Amino acid sequence: MKAFIKQNMSRYVKLSNEEFERFYATLKFGTFKKREDLLVSGNICREAFFIIEGCIRYYNVSDGEEHTGQFFFEGSWYSDYDSFLFERPSKQTIQAIEKTSVAILSKASMNQLYDDLPRFERFGRLMAENAFMGLRQRTEALTQLSALDRYMRLVENRPKVIQRVPQRFIASYLGIRPQSLSRIRKSIT
Amino acid sequence: MKAFIKQNMSRYVKLSNEEFERFYATLKFGTFKKREDLLVSGNICREAFFIIEGCIRYYNVSDGEEHTGQFFFEGSWYSDYDSFLFERPSKQTIQAIEKTSVAILSKASMNQLYDDLPRFERFGRLMAENAFMGLRQRTEALTQLSALDRYMRLVENRPKVIQRVPQRFIASYLGIRPQSLSRIRKSIT
Repeated sequence: MKAFIKQNMSRYVKLSNEEFERFYATLKFGTFKKREDLLVSGNICREAFFIIEGCIRYYNVSDGEEHTGQFFFEGSWYSDYDSFLFERPSKQTIQAIEKTSVAILSKASMNQLYDDLPRFERFGRLMAENAFMGLRQRTEALTQLSALDRYMRLVENRPKVIQRVPQRFIASYLGIRPQSLSRIRKSIT
Repeated sequence: MKAFIKQNMSRYVKLSNEEFERFYATLKFGTFKKREDLLVSGNICREAFFIIEGCIRYYNVSDGEEHTGQFFFEGSWYSDYDSFLFERPSKQTIQAIEKTSVAILSKASMNQLYDDLPRFERFGRLMAENAFMGLRQRTEALTQLSALDRYMRLVENRPKVIQRVPQRFIASYLGIRPQSLSRIRKSIT
């Protein structure tokens, strides 16, 4: 597990062994059952989650319906960046789709690491850049692509979603009813 | 001018004199006439602009109409972060509203600074965080606030916009016709 985190971290920033140990020592670890919440909307998100094993989604509720924003799998970091940065109540619930184990980096630890290890800033910068790009792509997909195109994009780019995520969550991600998703799937095969 | 840039930079990151000189040496400088474009949509934005004096806006065109996204004044950095990060053609035009002088930091210089000065990463991180927050706030304002509320927010929080920006650009920022803006202004006074 430590090796997995180290290898993942090296994709963002080159830390010395000593620096990595310093970072690793700040992590906490947790396991969430299938359908358990990592964050409940209304709370401030003060943590970033690194998925060691499993799969999560985040969703918002409006007009009594869940709108799934995104899915994340092993090797991904996720935080409600909006709540994390502004320190305001999150509008999201983050939920485990499968039994999921995570490493948890608190905002306080992150700020301390920024001060202690200037090199670690690159990790923060890339996280922020990814959050920006994710928000932009999500906004564009919702405003510019049809549900069919969004589904085709999932099939092509994110096979894990198709394989591991229940249909109703995929439908909620696409912004359509499960019945419409069934029709789309039939029309493709 | 150098002192102004140094003082502004210190809001983001504590650089040693030597580090600041290294950063400052990478800057280019330019002056744009009133209504001159700093970036024309369709081109890739490979620069970040720091406004030394003056005022700029960015806008998109859709259905033959300009939609102003934001205004920036002395002491602000701006770049089409989407185009800057993805290296894809910008959908924005960045235009000087007044005669404007800027310091220009190229993406190539920025990447070099990240490698040479780990501390500089903090600047990049805060830029990315600001871009994320700007995108989020803009999206929220457009979807959740009325034109009147958006105007009131401008009056309260951004007096420079009210004082220095022509009415038609403010109207285009609020997503309303200049006549509607006149009515809103009358209804307030």
